[in-house]
Amino acid sequence: MNMNFVDLIIKKRDKKSLSSEEINYFVKCASDRNFPDYQISAMLMAIYLNGLNDKETSDLTMAMANSGKILDLSEISGIKVDKHSTGGVADTTTLVLAPLVASCGLPVVKMSGRGLGHTGGTVDKLESIPGFNTEVSEKNAIDLVKKQKIVIMSQSEDLAPADKRFYAMRDVTGTVESIPLIASSIMSKKIAAGCDAIVLDVKCGNGSFMKDFSSAEKLAQTMVEIGKNVNKKVIAVITDMSEPLGKHIGNSLEVMEAIEILKGNTNGRLKEVSLEIGSLMLILGNISKTVEEARALLEKNIKNKKGLEKLRELIISQKGDPKIIDDYSLFPKCKFKKELISEFSGYISDMDTYNIGKAACETGAGRKTKTDKIDYSAGIILKFSLGDKINKGDVLAEIYSSSEERLENAWNILKNCIKISENPPKPQKTILKIIGEIKK
Amino acid sequence: MNMNFVDLIIKKRDKKSLSSEEINYFVKCASDRNFPDYQISAMLMAIYLNGLNDKETSDLTMAMANSGKILDLSEISGIKVDKHSTGGVADTTTLVLAPLVASCGLPVVKMSGRGLGHTGGTVDKLESIPGFNTEVSEKNAIDLVKKQKIVIMSQSEDLAPADKRFYAMRDVTGTVESIPLIASSIMSKKIAAGCDAIVLDVKCGNGSFMKDFSSAEKLAQTMVEIGKNVNKKVIAVITDMSEPLGKHIGNSLEVMEAIEILKGNTNGRLKEVSLEIGSLMLILGNISKTVEEARALLEKNIKNKKGLEKLRELIISQKGDPKIIDDYSLFPKCKFKKELISEFSGYISDMDTYNIGKAACETGAGRKTKTDKIDYSAGIILKFSLGDKINKGDVLAEIYSSSEERLENAWNILKNCIKISENPPKPQKTILKIIGEIKK
Repeated sequence: MNMNFVDLIIKKRDKKSLSSEEINYFVKCASDRNFPDYQISAMLMAIYLNGLNDKETSDLTMAMANSGKILDLSEISGIKVDKHSTGGVADTTTLVLAPLVASCGLPVVKMSGRGLGHTGGTVDKLESIPGFNTEVSEKNAIDLVKKQKIVIMSQSEDLAPADKRFYAMRDVTGTVESIPLIASSIMSKKIAAGCDAIVLDVKCGNGSFMKDFSSAEKLAQTMVEIGKNVNKKVIAVITDMSEPLGKHIGNSLEVMEAIEILKGNTNGRLKEVSLEIGSLMLILGNISKTVEEARALLEKNIKNKKGLEKLRELIISQKGDPKIIDDYSLFPKCKFKKELISEFSGYISDMDTYNIGKAACETGAGRKTKTDKIDYSAGIILKFSLGDKINKGDVLAEIYSSSEERLENAWNILKNCIKISENPPKPQKTILKIIGEIKK
Repeated sequence: MNMNFVDLIIKKRDKKSLSSEEINYFVKCASDRNFPDYQISAMLMAIYLNGLNDKETSDLTMAMANSGKILDLSEISGIKVDKHSTGGVADTTTLVLAPLVASCGLPVVKMSGRGLGHTGGTVDKLESIPGFNTEVSEKNAIDLVKKQKIVIMSQSEDLAPADKRFYAMRDVTGTVESIPLIASSIMSKKIAAGCDAIVLDVKCGNGSFMKDFSSAEKLAQTMVEIGKNVNKKVIAVITDMSEPLGKHIGNSLEVMEAIEILKGNTNGRLKEVSLEIGSLMLILGNISKTVEEARALLEKNIKNKKGLEKLRELIISQKGDPKIIDDYSLFPKCKFKKELISEFSGYISDMDTYNIGKAACETGAGRKTKTDKIDYSAGIILKFSLGDKINKGDVLAEIYSSSEERLENAWNILKNCIKISENPPKPQKTILKIIGEIKK
């Protein structure tokens, strides 16, 4: 290709569209370690400010996916349906729905990431189970799925390397919150992970990346559009993140909550979102024909414990201790606990979800920087939901940490995160919108 | 300062204004060699696309000027008036007006640059005079001006180093054509050069950086505004560059044309612009009260040869051979010459000035890259002006080069640069507009 990178920057700067060849060249340059960062960052800022159209975004997605290895899952029979959440607090859906849909016959090859900042990561949560190993080779993963329909593993390092470079640069150049860049980043990794179809959980609200509905909707639409352009079935669900999705925040705490849901003991928002996304996965995977049918199948496999048993199989196959399912005392234990007590009576009218996530991170449950070590036992258990009636003296939350100082810090953050008012807030739906074709 | 550079990028990305402290921090970071290029380039793109207001532009100018050494000319009595041209083809004004205004009593401390691409540089032109030395120390420069009112020297390397970094980065990140960045770059160097007042020659037309009048006007206004904000008297003249300003293009060729004007032998556009800018310099320098008075003084000093004698003093004081003034054969000589002959009769209706400059560069008169060596004798002499009537067979231009191949290349470029039509073009004024306060 006889292209000049500066010409491409100028084209985008001047609000013109880049051709497929030009997008490919852009990504090829970014894949070359010796290519200068300053040209990439200038391009990213031009893209941030002038946008990318649907075709450019799809081209960018495929170019990033193709910048590294693309997993070949063809040995596994059936439609491979992946899911992705844009991230929030107490978002443990994968741990609930992955074993559940696998128990319905859907093959689940799930690559997950680690937590950073106010959000947790599925890989960290699983590693809170003593012995659990998330480092699974591609071959072993395929063998596991052929045998038992499920594997959950760390995201491979060589997945979409161009995206990795963009991602790292965007963080330090003020170009993070760009919908085409976010959409192509997410989709490139999913496509590189080898799936045929994807259900996206786009979070919306003060605990998520997209604070307002219209941005969340735009992101969801953009990703569904990419799916159409690159020939992958994609459905996006916009779900509420104006309070933590579950009641447990922190690694082993979230695993326990997921187990309780699979045992049929716990209802609520986390279960609702898990069943919604799980249903859509079953439909895209040709297991069920309608949402009602899919939902009924999932409910059945909670009731008959098939989902729970699939989780047990998963834990055993990845060298974890399956006894934790029946005995939570086998999880690592925290040294310190402190309660947050309500000073007022009234209704929980607002939750600063982002800072609740930050408080959980402060207990040791999360990482402030990539190299921080996680305390798997630390975290927060919330004792209420948005809109609940509270009396003065009620326990609002339990905070767990192995450091008294961190416990105190987390308590100090958390106490400012919960607003109690005289009147109940307007009720908020959990599933806000579904975007994409459900019927085949 | 407890600032985070990414926050500044985000502020500008979001179309907010940066405070003086923030602009200073930006320039301070850019002055640190270890500070990452990619953050600077993201900021430059954000500035390119979202602009800077007048206050930000002035703050940036002063911060860049202060990033290096500022020349102290206080030992020289009188108002120090500098001039700057945004660059064009056959723009030899400095060589005409510097000795001329100095002969009127205005102290001239002129720092000049070298040529690059289609434009020439005063330093190269002077170095075509055998022996002429443009490397003058600050102390020597001040002594020369105290003695004889004039020095012309190479721009110091430590002038506005932050601007140097921005300038180099803009070239490779598609952020060159930004009016606030161009304006602050020019003005920071002029301010660092220690002057009290500046006359700016903003070129407009197909041989200059600003192709259209409104961009040239905006650039001129921006620089005059910076002058107001930083307390320097600034007047900008917008002049036409839709044809080469003089008839000679190339280093020694341009020196000869300047000498011919100072001898009173040549009139035309180059003289007109030189007298216009010279007049404004005399007014800003408190030598003359009105443009008419200043103009008359300059004309007088051409007629009485005081300007020419000042040039002779300049050449002698900077170790050049003054005999070239009376004997052009002492300039280096070219091996080859080729004429461009008109194939049509009609009027010169359009000149591709940019490519005429490129053709001159091709002869060896200019540099394609910073490290190219210059052939001082090479270049082009045009035999006509825009609007002139031409007959088939007339010599349109003479091309000089010491390489037959380059001569041929230049001829091939030049032959496509001159359009001959049946009807004469609309006459074009040379001085298009004056911006800024002339009266004190």
